[in-house]
This record gives sequence, structure tokens and C-alpha cells, in this order.
Amino acid sequence: MVESSSNSSTALKSLIPYDENNHFPLENIPFGAFQNPHHNHVHCCTRIGDKVVDLAILEQNGLFDGPLFTQLRPKVVFEHHHLNSFMDLGKDYWHEARVTIQNLFAEGSTKISEEILSKALFDHDQVQMKTPVFIRDYTDFYSSKNHAYNVGVMFRGPDNALQPNWLHLPVGYHGRASSIVLSGQEIVRPRGQTSADQKNPNFSECKRLDFELEVGAYVGKSNQLGKPVKISEAPDYVFGFCLLNDWSARDIQAWEYVPLGPFNAKNFASTISPWVITAEALEPFKIKLPVQEPAPLNYLKDENNYSYDVELDVLLTTNTLTEPYTISKSNFKHMYWSTNQQLVHHTVTGCNLNVGDLLGSGTISSTEKSGYGSLLEISWGGKEPLSLPNGEQRTFLQDGDTLIMRGSCKGNGFTIGFGDCSGKILPALDESNFY
Amino acid sequence: MVESSSNSSTALKSLIPYDENNHFPLENIPFGAFQNPHHNHVHCCTRIGDKVVDLAILEQNGLFDGPLFTQLRPKVVFEHHHLNSFMDLGKDYWHEARVTIQNLFAEGSTKISEEILSKALFDHDQVQMKTPVFIRDYTDFYSSKNHAYNVGVMFRGPDNALQPNWLHLPVGYHGRASSIVLSGQEIVRPRGQTSADQKNPNFSECKRLDFELEVGAYVGKSNQLGKPVKISEAPDYVFGFCLLNDWSARDIQAWEYVPLGPFNAKNFASTISPWVITAEALEPFKIKLPVQEPAPLNYLKDENNYSYDVELDVLLTTNTLTEPYTISKSNFKHMYWSTNQQLVHHTVTGCNLNVGDLLGSGTISSTEKSGYGSLLEISWGGKEPLSLPNGEQRTFLQDGDTLIMRGSCKGNGFTIGFGDCSGKILPALDESNFY
Repeated sequence: MVESSSNSSTALKSLIPYDENNHFPLENIPFGAFQNPHHNHVHCCTRIGDKVVDLAILEQNGLFDGPLFTQLRPKVVFEHHHLNSFMDLGKDYWHEARVTIQNLFAEGSTKISEEILSKALFDHDQVQMKTPVFIRDYTDFYSSKNHAYNVGVMFRGPDNALQPNWLHLPVGYHGRASSIVLSGQEIVRPRGQTSADQKNPNFSECKRLDFELEVGAYVGKSNQLGKPVKISEAPDYVFGFCLLNDWSARDIQAWEYVPLGPFNAKNFASTISPWVITAEALEPFKIKLPVQEPAPLNYLKDENNYSYDVELDVLLTTNTLTEPYTISKSNFKHMYWSTNQQLVHHTVTGCNLNVGDLLGSGTISSTEKSGYGSLLEISWGGKEPLSLPNGEQRTFLQDGDTLIMRGSCKGNGFTIGFGDCSGKILPALDESNFY
Repeated sequence: MVESSSNSSTALKSLIPYDENNHFPLENIPFGAFQNPHHNHVHCCTRIGDKVVDLAILEQNGLFDGPLFTQLRPKVVFEHHHLNSFMDLGKDYWHEARVTIQNLFAEGSTKISEEILSKALFDHDQVQMKTPVFIRDYTDFYSSKNHAYNVGVMFRGPDNALQPNWLHLPVGYHGRASSIVLSGQEIVRPRGQTSADQKNPNFSECKRLDFELEVGAYVGKSNQLGKPVKISEAPDYVFGFCLLNDWSARDIQAWEYVPLGPFNAKNFASTISPWVITAEALEPFKIKLPVQEPAPLNYLKDENNYSYDVELDVLLTTNTLTEPYTISKSNFKHMYWSTNQQLVHHTVTGCNLNVGDLLGSGTISSTEKSGYGSLLEISWGGKEPLSLPNGEQRTFLQDGDTLIMRGSCKGNGFTIGFGDCSGKILPALDESNFY
């Protein structure tokens, strides 16, 4: 009997071999969606070691035999394009599915036949991953104090770096759900309105194209319109996490964002990593956040306010630098407002969250320049170019650059990884495409 | 043979009787969704006079017999909860469906049997309307110059009323799709963070609850991510229009909106009217917009820039004033940026629109105080209370108030109406619901 990873202090052993640096041990059990190459249908899946496992095949063969899933039959949970049906079942089902998979693939397990293994397992580099979740609404926050401070210093100087509301509420805005794309999809450099003098506009390709290092949280429970979520209930609403690159066109943003916020500067694409790493898998990496000063209003107060110790790396390749070079090392622990606080604040006026909503953390910057979460900060508004090992310099992203984000947690004898969140920049369309 | 209404100069005659002031003559043919009381299934529908017509019943009986719909069989278009499948077919199908319905219900038509009529027709006040469209993404613009100017004068004075970007691009932001509700749904007064001194927050019920008079445009065609829509192509992307009340919590908004725009102040609810009035039905009411000065950039230039002559009325009832009282008379023609320009600007950096997206016009105010589109403007920031006929005064909405929006176009012997967009304000939840 294999216990859930949250109770284990040493590494679990699996019948699928992998080494201790592999990002997908039995302690992880991420959830995603992929195209099964046998028939090209999209199914929900997990990953163990270097194998992608078709969960619909396991389900079809009656292997989800815990009490909750048994009662669900003949309802089908994993033979879907997205994880939403599974997520909608709630956290007890998430836990049972996780433990069931851990048991099925535990070393010595004989529950799963060779025939089923041959149908359900695929080399991860032989399959095409798909968007794991139908994201109904996407909200992006701005909750790393280091990032908000850095940006504030650049625009308003150190004395007024944080806006008056920043320490009182997790500032956020509604993002564009339709243009969320999966890791690997190429990003066309946007073209739009910019203004050098903030008076007269130009129609120009974006010259300050940036990434934003974020963690996305998937909502796994809906609240009714008009019924706010209490902070004590918030953990039940969080299914899991992904990496998120909130691509940003800084020059377009500077011209458009007053007074209603970023629009064209953000809505051309946001990239997510393919796997959902569950809150349960991250449980051993919980890390208490510092006490907030000033104390937040009661509805945001959380004695047990936490984030997770997830190391976040940002790497870059260029047309000539083909070996990924690390340009930033940050961590999900550098949050001021927690995911739970963001979620509660989102609903305070009554807004209804739905299963599948994505909440972006906001750019996560450490206190050090080596851990800033955007090129805007790394190059300090373009004034301090970053030097790459081959002698190239970067202030913002150039065509041909590939930006890669990675996340991982170091456990006792195992590593939990998020999988890459990457995108390559393609040249802008020429003007004939616009009028 | 009945011609499409856009070619007719006198009123069409229908086998369903209605008078010339009825908002749903054969010239209208709006599209919606309702719960068929015979079996409680939700189907797509239209309305003629005071009758709601179940389009799925007509379809099941082979009455959509034009060349395009005939080729579609056995695909089902109207036996769905939402109009999206129909909308996705494109404008040639929209036109054929409209003309088919007009012909079926033309005076003297014998195409539709008594038996089918008895199954497909319902008194409008006996059925429950449903959300007509699955709204994938909702975007709200800010495109009435009178409104932007009024708000700007209040916050910055007349010399700097319009922000520098306002005359160069249709300012917009991403809204919350999940909390769009149908006319008639009650609105709970939101509670959230406000700050009298813009420094220290309070947790308070909203004391400046407002409406915003808007027209919503439904997108009926998708563009690929990375492929902007040209202004010449934009009309093909617009399926139709509704009334939209973008409820706004002004005190919450004032505290939260810097620097990323409105969030909690808007996401608690937005109300839509139940019918989609097609662009084709509104064709006779097209009205050319004034030449824009300064001229917009090429991608936004439209020699034939238009809106529609739709009279927009805002009415109020209170706990003691039960007869709706008109508090504003505006018109959809008071737009600076057109729906087509909004749509094109939305896609300029490559954002993909999907069938079912909703684009809010922004609050539509006329130049006169009698035609302002929000209480913020009507009461000039709360300083000039509005007097109601029973002696009550209003700066902002009070509990028990019902706000009703109506829209109509006066044709030659007929009227095209939008149906009511209404919502009643319920008291805020008490604090025990929040922590």
C-alpha cells in the first residue's frame, strides 16, 4: 500500500523506472490532456517518469476502483478533451484519483496488466500535449511586492513606488481567456499603437516585447454569483498550478493602459505549461508567508497565509545561443498576497468563479536582480542590457528568441517539476495584413 | 414572397397579429433562447408580436428549407441551449434563417400547419427566457465621447478631460464573462473595499451603486490567433446587438482601479437583454458617424463609419415609485468609435475573437444631461441629486430600485425593439457572510 506523497518522507518507488532528478515521480501525479496517437482522440492523462499515461484507458478498464469513483460509474471522467469534468468533482475525488494512480504504478503493483500498459503508456516525447483545462475566465493579479516595487520605482520613483491600494488588496484585472496558448506555440510579435511622446501615436511593431514569470492557479470549485468565498474555505477552491508567461508589449501598454488597464499589450497571447500540478502534490512544499503590515481587512486575514517553495527558472535561447541560458531564478514563495487571498478578493463583491478559471499570480520577482521576473526589471526599463554568454545583449525579446520557464520543488529524494512553459518569438506581420 | 425587411419600405404583414407599436414585427426577427414549457428543454427561439417561437420545432419539421439549411441536414442548429452553433454558420445562414422565418409567418402563409403552430408558439409572458449566447469572452469599451468627457471633467477638469490616447484608439478592457446575467435577475448590492481618503480602506457596502447604459455587440465569426481583422472585413464579424447594463460600484472602483483598471467594481454582475437584434434587422437604421478628428491610424480608418439610430431609454422604479420613470434618453448613435473599429482594434495585436464574444460599447451619453448614461453623470458625481416624481431623490441606486433599459428603432410603419434589460437592487449581505 502506497501512501499519498504528502505523508511520505522518502521517495516512493514506481514500476515505471525514473531517476531521482526526474520531475514526474509518483509524488507528482500531474494532470493534463494529450492526443492519444493510437486513435488521435484527446484524453486526460498524467505523467510518471518519461511516460504519459492515458487516464481514459485506465478508467475504461475499471482501474479507478476507489469508493468515490466506483459510485460514479458509468459516468466518464477522463475520456474528455479537458480536465474540467474531473475538477468539478471536488477535492475528495482529486485525492482518490491521485492515490489510485500512485497505487496502480507502485513498484510491485500487479493491478495493471501488460496489455493495458501497452495501450495506456506513451513516451512523453512521442505525444502531443493539449490545453489541459477549458479556461472559462482568466484573471491576472499583481501580487509580488518586489515586482510592483520595481515597476513603481521606474515609473514614479522610490518614494511613491507602491500605489496607495497595493498593500490593502491584491490588485488584479480580468485577462483574455481566448488567447491562452500551450507551451511550445510560437508567438507572433504584436503590432499596434505606441507613442514615444505619449501624445501622438504610431502604428509600429512592438519594440519592448517582454515576458512575465507567473504561476497560474486553476480554480476547481465554483461559487454562486453573489456568494463570496471566505478565506477559510479558499483552499477547497484551488485544484492546482501551472507556469504562466504573461507576454507583455511594454510600449503598447504604456500608451493604452490609462485609465482602464492593459488590453492589446497583453491579449495577443499568454502561455501555460501543459501540466496541472495539484495543490496536494505541493502540500509538502507549503511555506508560510510573512505577516502582512498593514494588517489586511478581516475578509483577507489569514493566520495561515502560505505560498509554495517552488524554484522558478527563466531561460533564454536566441538564433545563435542554442544552449538555454538562465536569465532569472525566482521562487513562488516571493508572493505578498497568497493565491487564497487573491481568490477571496476576487469574489468579495459577489463575482462567481467557475471550475477551470485561471488566476495568474502576477510577475514573481525576488529581491535580487538575478531573480527579477521580467526583462523590464532585469534591464531596468531598457537602460541596463543583459549580457548573454555569446556576447549578445538583450533589453527586450528579439525575433528568434525562445523564452523558457521551469519550476521545481526539491523533496526528500525526489523532485516535483512543472514541465516547460516556452514560446519562440516570430517576426511581426507586415502592414499589409492590417488594412 | 416576403422580401427581407432591409429592402422593404412599408410594414410587413404577419399571420401573427400585432400592432404597429409592437417591438417584434416581422422586420425584427430577434434570436434568443427559452425554456420550452412542454418539456422544459432549452431551445433557440425568435419572437413575433407577443409570441415566442421555438425554432427547434420548426427545424425538426423541416421548415428551414432554404438551400443552405437543407444542405446542413441532419445537423441540428436550433435544438441547443445557446445560439452559438447558429452564429458560427456565418452571415449567409443568418440571412437565410431570417428570410425563412419571415416567409413562414407572412400573412397568408400556409407553410406552417396548425399542429406545428400549437407546438412552437408560446405567449411571451408564459415562458422563461434564458441567456441567448454562451459568452466566451467579454470586453467592455469606453467609446462615447460625451461619457468620457463628463467623467474626465469630474476627475481632472475640462482642460484635461480626455486622456491623451482617447481620440486615437477605442480604449477598452477585458470584463468578467461569468457574471453576465439575464434581464430580470436581481442584483445584490456589493460589499468590498472603499476608501474615503484614498489611503485607508474600509470594508463597506457599496454606497455609490450605478448603472451604465450600453449596447452589446455579439461576435458571430472567429478570427485566428495572430490574424488581425481588417476594418473592411469587420461587418462580417458582427452578428447582432443587445442592451447591456454594466453595473458599477463607483466607490469600490475609485479605490481599486489604479493602475490595472476596474475589477471588483464591475465583476459582480452585468445584465443583458434576452434578445439578439441582428445587424441585418438594424440595417435600415444605420447612421453615419461624424468624421473623426484627429484622423485615426490607417488600420482604424473607415470611410463608412457607422452606428445605428437606436433610441435608448433608462427608467427607474423604487419601492414607492412603481410606475417606471424615465431618467435618461440617449441613442446608440452617440458613439465616437464604432463597433467595427472596436472589433478591429481588439484584434490588432493578434487577439482571437470567438463566436459568442460580447463587446460592450461603453456607456452611451448624449450631449444633454437628459441623455447621460449613468447616475455618476446625471447626479454629477453625487452633487446634483435627481428628483423623482414622487419627491424622492437619487444620487446613486438604492435598495429596492429597479433599473430598466429599453431600446427601439422607428421604421416606416413599424418599430424594432430590443426587449427590456432590467435588474432590481437587493440589500448587501451582512458581514457574517465574508469571514
